[in-house]
Amino acid sequence: MLDIRPYLDSESDVSLYRQLGLYLQNLIEDGQLLPGFRLPPTRELAAKTGVNRTTVSAAYEMLESAGLIRGEVGRGSYVCGTGERAETVNWGRALTASVSTRAGSPAAGVINFTSASPSDRLFPVEEFRESCREVLESRNLKTLMQLGSPGGYEPLRRFLFDRAVEQGVARPTDDILITNGCQQALDLLRRALVRAGDKVAIEEPVYPGLKNLFLEAGAELIGVAVGAEGMELPSLQRALDAGAKVVIVTPSFQNPTGTTIPEATRTNLCAMVRHAGAVLIENDIYSELAYSGTANTRLKHTDQNVILLGSFSKIAFPGIRVGWIIAPRPVIARATELKQLADLHTDHLSQAFLLNFAESGKLGRHREVVIAAAKDKLRALEQSCRRHLADCVWTLPAGGMNIWVTLPAGIDSMALRGLAQQAGIDYLPGRYFSISRPLDSGLRLSFAGLEPNEIRRGIEILGSLVRSATGARDERDSRPVLALV
Amino acid sequence: MLDIRPYLDSESDVSLYRQLGLYLQNLIEDGQLLPGFRLPPTRELAAKTGVNRTTVSAAYEMLESAGLIRGEVGRGSYVCGTGERAETVNWGRALTASVSTRAGSPAAGVINFTSASPSDRLFPVEEFRESCREVLESRNLKTLMQLGSPGGYEPLRRFLFDRAVEQGVARPTDDILITNGCQQALDLLRRALVRAGDKVAIEEPVYPGLKNLFLEAGAELIGVAVGAEGMELPSLQRALDAGAKVVIVTPSFQNPTGTTIPEATRTNLCAMVRHAGAVLIENDIYSELAYSGTANTRLKHTDQNVILLGSFSKIAFPGIRVGWIIAPRPVIARATELKQLADLHTDHLSQAFLLNFAESGKLGRHREVVIAAAKDKLRALEQSCRRHLADCVWTLPAGGMNIWVTLPAGIDSMALRGLAQQAGIDYLPGRYFSISRPLDSGLRLSFAGLEPNEIRRGIEILGSLVRSATGARDERDSRPVLALV
Repeated sequence: MLDIRPYLDSESDVSLYRQLGLYLQNLIEDGQLLPGFRLPPTRELAAKTGVNRTTVSAAYEMLESAGLIRGEVGRGSYVCGTGERAETVNWGRALTASVSTRAGSPAAGVINFTSASPSDRLFPVEEFRESCREVLESRNLKTLMQLGSPGGYEPLRRFLFDRAVEQGVARPTDDILITNGCQQALDLLRRALVRAGDKVAIEEPVYPGLKNLFLEAGAELIGVAVGAEGMELPSLQRALDAGAKVVIVTPSFQNPTGTTIPEATRTNLCAMVRHAGAVLIENDIYSELAYSGTANTRLKHTDQNVILLGSFSKIAFPGIRVGWIIAPRPVIARATELKQLADLHTDHLSQAFLLNFAESGKLGRHREVVIAAAKDKLRALEQSCRRHLADCVWTLPAGGMNIWVTLPAGIDSMALRGLAQQAGIDYLPGRYFSISRPLDSGLRLSFAGLEPNEIRRGIEILGSLVRSATGARDERDSRPVLALV
Repeated sequence: MLDIRPYLDSESDVSLYRQLGLYLQNLIEDGQLLPGFRLPPTRELAAKTGVNRTTVSAAYEMLESAGLIRGEVGRGSYVCGTGERAETVNWGRALTASVSTRAGSPAAGVINFTSASPSDRLFPVEEFRESCREVLESRNLKTLMQLGSPGGYEPLRRFLFDRAVEQGVARPTDDILITNGCQQALDLLRRALVRAGDKVAIEEPVYPGLKNLFLEAGAELIGVAVGAEGMELPSLQRALDAGAKVVIVTPSFQNPTGTTIPEATRTNLCAMVRHAGAVLIENDIYSELAYSGTANTRLKHTDQNVILLGSFSKIAFPGIRVGWIIAPRPVIARATELKQLADLHTDHLSQAFLLNFAESGKLGRHREVVIAAAKDKLRALEQSCRRHLADCVWTLPAGGMNIWVTLPAGIDSMALRGLAQQAGIDYLPGRYFSISRPLDSGLRLSFAGLEPNEIRRGIEILGSLVRSATGARDERDSRPVLALV
């Protein structure tokens, strides 16, 4: 008879009961323990393996939950027949397939360029606390605890819409919907505008959260090339000619490239999309993070049809999830209906907290602090890139959180990532931002969450890795290769 | 030449500029103002109509936004040709079609039986404020302001999961995902489990938020009859035989009927679904609102495959949107991936606030207060229904927020609603809860938000309306009708 003798590692991150359960599961699935086989009593196996009896019980329960064994009162636990096992749902078949690419977890204890989120070192914790306290102490609290409106908390809606009217981007024919950040805005617009098989034009490279959302919905993505001046119009025209019904663009400080579409190009871009009868979505979550000069004119200013997305996440605090859509009334009416189906409405307290924070002027002051700090970061970025990434191609952003670096030809940013993590930095390789183009030599550095000295040190490390890789490649290249004739 | 002379009503709810804009829009769309027609200068039209010049400008801007007129610098505003108008997106064509039924707004100033939400008169505002303050004053606040994990705030996940393990509903093979209330849990599970055209079995009557969500996704709904003892098994078996892949059930205090599936039936229900190889989703948001005796065994206790949905909304505060899914790991892994695409993660502060409120025992004490108050409401409900709705069919619920009333044959609850609103009450007619059965004589009374005296007065009103309608019907019935032979 088979000897059950698992190797259990008490130092492992995997708990002992799971180690034991997985060991037994393997034996059963390999057919080494056959249907009807009686497992040892928990007391016996515990003594034999040197673990607690409760650990063995938990392992058995895990197998029972997976439909691999069954317990019979007073008789012990038996391996199930395959017929009995069918009683467990086949999740692999029941669940819809994932089409998302996963970027893997960032390495720990390194200079982390992987996350396009603000630095929490700059969070004005005391000022925000004050805003929260004012909301909590108001008579309004009971209303905030009760069910609200799918469109959002009315005072916040009014504040944001009035501001947009003042800025010349909202018109009387527009309306506003509050969402859980910009990601939900995109999800609702996807449902409102995109049917399975529809063609959607998005920038390439593009951040995975946008790409995967539309892929999951069965849309056909057309990547529009992004150059040093943002989305390239000839590439956009090809996407429109190919039948794109929806175009999504981040005109200022695009993620991941950090590039910005020049003023002169913006009107043409709007006209092209309008002429094609397509819908234009303007992802405007970075434009207030302009580190020099003034913010650019929004596309929504140029064209009333544009659907404008805004969010507090990038200029305030991403853990508090509040964004919005400003668009022609029919779009907002449909998106609001879908918002109600998605989650009834955005959390009330967060809406009230951020309204207080913005209305009191605290958000504006925080923005100035962030921008002042970012100027130093940008300077460090520019100096370091010039000094250490001379062999690479990059465009210094004028705002936002990201810069895109193209490595010398032949160096794969995915392959380099392992070395980078060992050397003390992490970034996201180009592949995660790709739709159809090979972006294997590209990578994104998100710098907003780092201090200038971290940026300097990190880019120095990256530069030395690139030089080593270039040297290695040169050596390879120098080997004689037979001519192809 | 056409005389522009709008009738403007300064008392109207519609603002003056919109009245003027709509008047002009009609003239243009009717062809009374032809392409190329020059509109009067704003100053002139303002003087003529007695409104401000800015009002006229806003009306012109509204028409310009709608693509009906165009302004030319220094020359005035002209009516556009149809060719020019095509520059505006055709939203009717661009937007996906809505399949939702809308229940209409509840009447104002009446006894409102339309909303299945808790009474805010019982909200423990001071205790909740205290929980929020503790969270805000903790060192943890900065972490809460930063981007978090799609699966939810780890301490809340652990608290809820451990509690579920203690209750015997969560197993080591399960995992948990925090959502924005139960509505988002259903939306994520829809994406994880339902492809367009898939058959989904849900109770009938069922609340519109569940029905519309799956209809919008292109699922084929099969209504399973609900009787005095909840979902009826023979009807469920027919749905499974017809190919239902997913079954959604609210075993305790179902919305809208208030009915509960007896203990003895629960095991059979699980076995039937499992035998058919379908997925069972248990909507468990009401079970803690049991007004007498103990809560029933959850289906998840009986069958490990069950996907269990919980929420704070019904026992705490629906304005703070936190719910959860407990299910086998593969389900949670997929749902978490979809959660990240939907909105990155649930709001951090709300999760931390509700964790503190629950962990400190305040939620438990609040629940006792709610239940004590509900016993009085239930007594009022029972006495009033016995006294005033003797001609109707209803089952007294043992918990939750809703009761279903079936009017005497021939009385349409939709037709009666207008009379009810005039008489001082409002409810939701059966039609909104229907999938394929005619539920025109049914209606939902949501009583949890009302005081006992409001419940008494409201049902007395309903009773007298029913008696009048029955009398009217009897009179009609008493007219001689020719026999059909």
